[in-house]
Amino acid sequence: MIKKSFLILAITLSFYSFSQSDEEVIKNIYEAALTNGQAYGWLDHMSNNIGSRLSGSLGAERAVTYTKELMDSLGFDRVFLQPVMVPKWVRGNPEFAYIETAPGDTVKVNICALGGSVATPAAGLKAQVVEVQGISDLKTRDRSEIEGKIVFFNMPMPASKILTFEAYGAAVGQRTQGAKEASKLGAVGAIVRSMNLRLDDFPHTGTMSYGDLPKSQHIPTAAISTNDAEKLSSYLKLDSELNFFFKQNCLTLPDVMSYNVIGEIKGSNYPNEIILVGGHLDSWDLGDGSHDDGAGCVQSIEVLRLFKELGIKPKRTLRAVMFMNEENGLRGGREYAKVAEAKGLNHIFALESDSGGFSPRGFNIDANEERFAYISSWSDLFKPYLTNTFNLGGSGADIGPLKKAGIVLAGLFPDSQRYFDYHHTAIDTFDAINKRELELGAGTMAALVYLIDKYGTSPR
Amino acid sequence: MIKKSFLILAITLSFYSFSQSDEEVIKNIYEAALTNGQAYGWLDHMSNNIGSRLSGSLGAERAVTYTKELMDSLGFDRVFLQPVMVPKWVRGNPEFAYIETAPGDTVKVNICALGGSVATPAAGLKAQVVEVQGISDLKTRDRSEIEGKIVFFNMPMPASKILTFEAYGAAVGQRTQGAKEASKLGAVGAIVRSMNLRLDDFPHTGTMSYGDLPKSQHIPTAAISTNDAEKLSSYLKLDSELNFFFKQNCLTLPDVMSYNVIGEIKGSNYPNEIILVGGHLDSWDLGDGSHDDGAGCVQSIEVLRLFKELGIKPKRTLRAVMFMNEENGLRGGREYAKVAEAKGLNHIFALESDSGGFSPRGFNIDANEERFAYISSWSDLFKPYLTNTFNLGGSGADIGPLKKAGIVLAGLFPDSQRYFDYHHTAIDTFDAINKRELELGAGTMAALVYLIDKYGTSPR
Repeated sequence: MIKKSFLILAITLSFYSFSQSDEEVIKNIYEAALTNGQAYGWLDHMSNNIGSRLSGSLGAERAVTYTKELMDSLGFDRVFLQPVMVPKWVRGNPEFAYIETAPGDTVKVNICALGGSVATPAAGLKAQVVEVQGISDLKTRDRSEIEGKIVFFNMPMPASKILTFEAYGAAVGQRTQGAKEASKLGAVGAIVRSMNLRLDDFPHTGTMSYGDLPKSQHIPTAAISTNDAEKLSSYLKLDSELNFFFKQNCLTLPDVMSYNVIGEIKGSNYPNEIILVGGHLDSWDLGDGSHDDGAGCVQSIEVLRLFKELGIKPKRTLRAVMFMNEENGLRGGREYAKVAEAKGLNHIFALESDSGGFSPRGFNIDANEERFAYISSWSDLFKPYLTNTFNLGGSGADIGPLKKAGIVLAGLFPDSQRYFDYHHTAIDTFDAINKRELELGAGTMAALVYLIDKYGTSPR
Repeated sequence: MIKKSFLILAITLSFYSFSQSDEEVIKNIYEAALTNGQAYGWLDHMSNNIGSRLSGSLGAERAVTYTKELMDSLGFDRVFLQPVMVPKWVRGNPEFAYIETAPGDTVKVNICALGGSVATPAAGLKAQVVEVQGISDLKTRDRSEIEGKIVFFNMPMPASKILTFEAYGAAVGQRTQGAKEASKLGAVGAIVRSMNLRLDDFPHTGTMSYGDLPKSQHIPTAAISTNDAEKLSSYLKLDSELNFFFKQNCLTLPDVMSYNVIGEIKGSNYPNEIILVGGHLDSWDLGDGSHDDGAGCVQSIEVLRLFKELGIKPKRTLRAVMFMNEENGLRGGREYAKVAEAKGLNHIFALESDSGGFSPRGFNIDANEERFAYISSWSDLFKPYLTNTFNLGGSGADIGPLKKAGIVLAGLFPDSQRYFDYHHTAIDTFDAINKRELELGAGTMAALVYLIDKYGTSPR
């Protein structure tokens, strides 16, 4: 029933309607984003002058200050910090690892500790290696095969998936759960093939969890580059008794205070209805987090700036939110939702950009069918910009805790092919950002926010 | 009438049909392209072992040999060379240029001669500069203002265009026609802002023409980088009488023999109906032409290889054609069409990939409305791969001469945002290619070829 009425609506709209003015406004939004966009310069500062922004680091605190001052300087109606306690995990000295086929006969390996891991013993950890294809393969193994060894999780992300986030989802369990499951079978360490579809030399960090294992069973875990994973696997075929050595000095310190940074333009008609755009301000520590998620932060601020530049006065209140601690805790997103609930704030729509600053193709939209049909009926307005792919389902991690009946959550949906070349690595840096792609993303977000502000999220 | 029936057709198809088998075959095509694709390795060889392939150069001839041997090794039914005479323009020693604000007070400029230009005098050319915003601006100027000067064409590509090829089309006239028009007003040289949307230090070459101007009026012309164009413009505002110096040693030699390279899989049912996929084998000389158009060549060969790998026996004859001399003459494309005409060959469809090896979004299709509607009705089959944008109009330069009633021409339509960062420069190199994006393009081409082979290009 709903589907049928959606079809009729869609056909009707594509033949008859769209007030000229919506088309014009959206054209103006994209044009301003591409000819006078500010996001690229802001990201240059955040990436190159501030750098990495791991929760609890000085970089993260500098980014809090920078984005607050930036939004102040743009003349938003209200800019404020929302305190939140965040975990503080530190990498310590650079990691070091090698494959040893005989005493002194070693091959260096590119490695990085996974976020949340414990250190190795100070002298490092050396043990034989058991290679498995992911968690399910591990679970078929006998304890006797695993005990005292380092488990090497080497399931590649499946290249056949078109959406690379699906390929990531299919493989990332061995990173997040690998150490825990290996420890249960008596392993002394766990190393994982980096979450990367291509073969290169960069190890990819990312979060992991020991679940409710007692501290005595926390074993050190790290990622090695895809090239090194291939190498180790081929060496193991020649010599299954080779040793793997790694040394890492990471450490979890007590939680520290940090902040979500929030900027606001007050709505003229319905100031109590909030439309949120956001990204996360924290990043991993290896690169400068330009794609993950500096891009989403500057795009979100740019959305509000575009409204001001174009003199569009929103009816609802627009909020740009830089969430803290998406990467290793999601504390910012949870705190934001908690405060919103406690204060009875009415968020009608939240849009996150956290899939990289690549060429936008549309949106993922987490809504019921009626609202999805309503919002999708605007997709033809996005056709001239090649951003008219509206997918049902999915949004963003930081806005997830806001989910409840009535609110529509969404995520910007950029091209995903190159994302995992950079994700959580030392090469997620500003030079990997294309100015126009970043700006098109901001324009795309602003256009949807404009329509939501004008028409709401349902036909009522 | 046609539109209406198309609409009904499209709706019917999207609700009822697509034999499961088409969906499966297309899934298999994409999966083979992504998990066992060969195009990336071939392009690595062509870019890194062969390098640039300007018409008439040794690189071009090596590429002829390589692609012929490659297609032979893949077991195509027939692989052959089609002779064609091509222009031979050579760059000579590296160009050199500077801005001179006072004797000895100079700033170096990144410059490259445009393809087809004459050299400067051996000692170089030094003159005052008149800046204009494109050809139409030049035409408003008095001869007295231009005579004896170097005309500096500084109209940027318009950033507001979403499709960067449209932005290119809006500005490239000053490159192709600038020298000719400037010469008519007595200019001694012409320099042009590089065809690039971003600001960087790389000059972009490309073809130019003196039209029917007598040789005595051929003035040297070159491109300078966008950063240097901005610099020169700002210097001119401070000192309109500054001098610009450039020296280039390019030369047009007599035409030489070269080849189109053609590989073929014979059709089982309609061997005389030809479906062509192609790219151009020649490139400019500054980079290694990985995007322009090494990508299109290896993708085209990959299309035929995918048919063989998957055991799909085409009903029509499939041809992969590497055209020679797209960049500065289009001789290969013209010769191919001439021979096809003379031999009475029946091409029903030709698909070119010449817009870079970026993430594919669909196709440009040059066909009448009925055929466009027919082919577009398959677009839902491309939805899972995000390649379902079917645009009416446009195809590729090399296949253009094949145009006549009945044939459908098409071009792969990749994301265009980054294309002009690389186009015709020293950085159009293999490291700018993403393996998956290249492979997705090949899979997309193969999927359309599969459907055309099976169903033809019209409902009859």
